[in-house]
Amino acid sequence: MPRAPLAPDLIADLWRAAHALADAARPVTLRHFRTAGLSADNKDAKGFDPVTAADREAEAAMRAVLADLRPDDAILGEEQGAKPGSTGLTWVLDPIDGTRGFLSGTPTWGVLIALADAHGPVLGLIDQPYIGERFAGGPGVARVQGPQGPAPLAVRPARPLSQAIVFTTFPEVGTAEDAAAFRRVSGQARLTRYGMDCYAYALLAAGQIDLVIEAGLQSYDIMAPIAVIEAAGGIVTDWQGGPAHHGGRVLAAANPAIHAEAMALLNA
Amino acid sequence: MPRAPLAPDLIADLWRAAHALADAARPVTLRHFRTAGLSADNKDAKGFDPVTAADREAEAAMRAVLADLRPDDAILGEEQGAKPGSTGLTWVLDPIDGTRGFLSGTPTWGVLIALADAHGPVLGLIDQPYIGERFAGGPGVARVQGPQGPAPLAVRPARPLSQAIVFTTFPEVGTAEDAAAFRRVSGQARLTRYGMDCYAYALLAAGQIDLVIEAGLQSYDIMAPIAVIEAAGGIVTDWQGGPAHHGGRVLAAANPAIHAEAMALLNA
Repeated sequence: MPRAPLAPDLIADLWRAAHALADAARPVTLRHFRTAGLSADNKDAKGFDPVTAADREAEAAMRAVLADLRPDDAILGEEQGAKPGSTGLTWVLDPIDGTRGFLSGTPTWGVLIALADAHGPVLGLIDQPYIGERFAGGPGVARVQGPQGPAPLAVRPARPLSQAIVFTTFPEVGTAEDAAAFRRVSGQARLTRYGMDCYAYALLAAGQIDLVIEAGLQSYDIMAPIAVIEAAGGIVTDWQGGPAHHGGRVLAAANPAIHAEAMALLNA
Repeated sequence: MPRAPLAPDLIADLWRAAHALADAARPVTLRHFRTAGLSADNKDAKGFDPVTAADREAEAAMRAVLADLRPDDAILGEEQGAKPGSTGLTWVLDPIDGTRGFLSGTPTWGVLIALADAHGPVLGLIDQPYIGERFAGGPGVARVQGPQGPAPLAVRPARPLSQAIVFTTFPEVGTAEDAAAFRRVSGQARLTRYGMDCYAYALLAAGQIDLVIEAGLQSYDIMAPIAVIEAAGGIVTDWQGGPAHHGGRVLAAANPAIHAEAMALLNA
């Protein structure tokens, strides 16, 4: 069953809440960004998955905003897990997506805020506090507000993979099998770049690049990017063409032609 | 023969000129950044080395500033080559370092401005126009001015390679031999990140990361980063520990201990 349109008043209320969440997270993350002695707990003993005080405090600040503005919505947050709700709407929060980038001082991490219903993301924000840049996508909105002022978001015109720019965060994408599949695509592309965290999805929505391919994502990593990219005219699926909002392996593309071209190579 | 100290009046004059150069380049690069239909000439038929109109126009704007403020200094620019001078001082200009990043919309490229004498760099700027962030290093100056205000630059306290963060722009660093040497270092590090262009050197000077390792650099790629990193207390050499300001293979480190540890592995 397709989604029934949300009432305009509700949409306006949800946008207000989304921006209030991003506004609340900004000073908290910036208080910790590029400070000496940044603590990095290791929540995954097998790898390097730092969780900073900034991460926890930013999520707490956002939950406090929701308790005030949208107390009956559910919450799914990276740090504090799930809180049930009664509205059928869920806020999906990743207070710092790209903790490795955060720890390295790169301005490529972001605060990810999405509002989802049973069908998937309704609207989303990718906020980069250090640059002061916010990418927004949802009903009637596809816009970036940044240091050079506001601008509409729209994916770039179609071009073949041989002329395309492909992004992923790490050269070692997912499993060995995932990495081999990624290299089948990147090997055909004009340019492959790494290390942008969630900022790569923002660049796709802003019409700068053609593809983002990732694996091993969580729902909160991809929910907001889906909303922003779809609002800008792009496509986000898993590597089989199905819904991507549950996480896992993600293929984000500027247009159907290059999406098909990349998906064929991923599954070759 | 060590360098004789420059007169304070001359230093002040050189800083004024350096900032005027960066100020002149900002609007030119931003006029082209993230615009549709960005042209990308291919100056290296073998690879992907785009040169944009932004690159050429920004260098022309900077040369016009020098013709006005410092007409007797020499100029070495990426785009328009060498202009001789009579003062023994040379401005080394890379109007857009990280053209691939520029073409991808990432805010990790920079305008590199250095003033060198016969001994090497005297002072330098790494300017990121989109973020509005300028890293400066030279006599008496080690400072960043950015969207969150001014801050001093200082390299981070020493920690062993096993706890360190290493950056390079591409996983395929230089030749196959260079790449193998890089992996000997990165394999021992806590975290390796890619894709930051000249911004990685700025992060080293800002105390965020421990090592930047690159190969195949030109003089104009590294002259300004050397000035900024050395002013912040760091070390930049080639992979044999010699001067790096002629380009080639570069090892930039936060402190002597990790510099030695990395150099031993590069040459193992």
